Amino acid sequence: MEFRIDPWSHVMIKEYEKLFQYFGIRPFAEVVDEFKTVAVPHPLMVRGVIFGHRDFNNVVNALKSGERFAIVTGLMPSGKMHFGHKMLIDQIIYYQRLGAEIFLIVADIEAYSVRRIGRKEAVDIALNDYVANYIALGLTKSNLHLYFQSNYSPKYYRLIQMISRKLSLAELRAAYGEDLEVGKVMSVITQIADILHPQIKDFGGFRDVLVPVGPDQDPHLRLTRDVAQRFEGELGLKPPASTYHRFMSGLDGGKMSSSRPESYISLDDDPLTASQKLMRAFTGGRATAEEQRRLGGEPEKCVVYEFYAYHFIPDDAELSKVYQECRTGKVLCGECKLRACEMLVKFLTEHRAKHEKAIDKVYEYVDVPDF
Amino acid sequence: MEFRIDPWSHVMIKEYEKLFQYFGIRPFAEVVDEFKTVAVPHPLMVRGVIFGHRDFNNVVNALKSGERFAIVTGLMPSGKMHFGHKMLIDQIIYYQRLGAEIFLIVADIEAYSVRRIGRKEAVDIALNDYVANYIALGLTKSNLHLYFQSNYSPKYYRLIQMISRKLSLAELRAAYGEDLEVGKVMSVITQIADILHPQIKDFGGFRDVLVPVGPDQDPHLRLTRDVAQRFEGELGLKPPASTYHRFMSGLDGGKMSSSRPESYISLDDDPLTASQKLMRAFTGGRATAEEQRRLGGEPEKCVVYEFYAYHFIPDDAELSKVYQECRTGKVLCGECKLRACEMLVKFLTEHRAKHEKAIDKVYEYVDVPDF
Repeated sequence: MEFRIDPWSHVMIKEYEKLFQYFGIRPFAEVVDEFKTVAVPHPLMVRGVIFGHRDFNNVVNALKSGERFAIVTGLMPSGKMHFGHKMLIDQIIYYQRLGAEIFLIVADIEAYSVRRIGRKEAVDIALNDYVANYIALGLTKSNLHLYFQSNYSPKYYRLIQMISRKLSLAELRAAYGEDLEVGKVMSVITQIADILHPQIKDFGGFRDVLVPVGPDQDPHLRLTRDVAQRFEGELGLKPPASTYHRFMSGLDGGKMSSSRPESYISLDDDPLTASQKLMRAFTGGRATAEEQRRLGGEPEKCVVYEFYAYHFIPDDAELSKVYQECRTGKVLCGECKLRACEMLVKFLTEHRAKHEKAIDKVYEYVDVPDF
Repeated sequence: MEFRIDPWSHVMIKEYEKLFQYFGIRPFAEVVDEFKTVAVPHPLMVRGVIFGHRDFNNVVNALKSGERFAIVTGLMPSGKMHFGHKMLIDQIIYYQRLGAEIFLIVADIEAYSVRRIGRKEAVDIALNDYVANYIALGLTKSNLHLYFQSNYSPKYYRLIQMISRKLSLAELRAAYGEDLEVGKVMSVITQIADILHPQIKDFGGFRDVLVPVGPDQDPHLRLTRDVAQRFEGELGLKPPASTYHRFMSGLDGGKMSSSRPESYISLDDDPLTASQKLMRAFTGGRATAEEQRRLGGEPEKCVVYEFYAYHFIPDDAELSKVYQECRTGKVLCGECKLRACEMLVKFLTEHRAKHEKAIDKVYEYVDVPDF
């Protein structure tokens, strides 16, 4: 029996086979060794959570030669920030510490135009539920451009306008579905500008840009890469690089989704409620204790194991031990969950205190739109 | 025989019957008397050239009560500025002198996205062929907001973003045709923001806005009025008022169009060439001189008469005399054209000198986008 700390990575490759086969995403594993020559990889990179990439080699080369590169990511100000979101911002903070310039976009216009959230509500959610949490998690002001889509600089809007000439409604329908509407069109070309604008002269100029995303965002990345190339001879824009991470599973074994509170633990859940949720979570346990002692558990199907691997156990040896104790049937789910709850309670309690402090600092991080 | 200085006004009403009957445009004649109580009307208003309106009463009331109101118009930086364009800017300058706040938009993004003109070229055309001519014609910096769509303030762009939620692709297709593309969508919502933004707090706030246009722009105005109302409870936006003017006929009797140089005289045509064009122009003359002496000419079909009425003869009595001399067959086309050419040469010569002086001033009028 092989002990793995990334029990799902082979499953992932299978699940996302099409992305590799038809769309040219490459396995992340093939760039990890080279990356290790310039930086200590983030745990998610070596645990098979970040499983694919496009052009990550460019980022490795930029790091090697000491060139500036940029990371772009966004937040949707709707619903609570949960551990699925945390996984992404953890990557961002990691790159910030590596020296990357961070462009962090509050997608308030997408919230307004597509999700039809009020503007004021979107701003409140963004500041309290996201930005304050990011600061609490360790995001600093260094090399950071954190902005609202509705409140940025004219050259950003000019790029949005220019992008409108570079694509067709038919392409947008192919990528985003037949029920395309004007708000969605606006939102898509805005997102493309979010990714491409760090290469515009006023925002830093021609360089490598990396966008860490979930695989559901790949159609958008592909379109953005195409658009970058359509500016050839007009603007110097490199197609953005990207990495793809596995999503966290929902507590109930379904998808983790902001729209189903039973599927996630949010960063501001009170520790008791959160623990109760985790105790009820879907695991890789067997039908009976006897069977589990005999066959061992299945970490690759276990939400609790994800919490360990994605969030609570940075040390590989320690994670490996947890894996083995499960796989060999030595530790059963009850005991394992209690241990996870202990970590969860500790994390949430400490995080709450940090969030409290961070909430006053949000205005130092982002220029907030007025009304 | 009735002598009229607006021989085409009845024809117009017939030609644009649908606008009145189905779309609720009102005859301009019905507001002229009331308007005369607060201002001396522009010649185009009393000569039947400005033939229709929506909500012009609101502008009259604003003038009566001394409230601020705004005029919005735009220029398309493509091709030469001709006498058809002059007719519009003459109205703008008239309103500026009446104390209105003028919002004058360079539609460089429409030029770029829809007409696919290079950005640099659009800026050059806008400054040299339009803005400098406007200054030469008398536009001042007083109460003027002259800006490029690609180079304005973030709150303007925020309004564009917000408008994207307020309309559907189906509506846009109904108004602008089935071959709608992303660039056109961007251009349309930008134009709607051009008209509505003077009512946003930062640009002056809730008030009457008037848009003088040709009747071809009415679908756009109707849509803009609808969008204004869809912001109820969210932004305070009055539906814009509008006036509708007859287009100048082309020199060759067709449509006057920037894309057919033989159809127009541009403001920078050299006087000799311009005169030759006018001498060849389509008139209301008869088949033979004998016939014309007997029956009289037809000013309502005459391009030369339009030049008099729209541009060269501000005095109504003088224009009436010209009309009578034609209508009674006293003056034939050759003589009449020579007189018009004299006026044209004088105008173009003086205008050229003014344009020369104005060209250095354009940067005082508008913040020019860099590249």
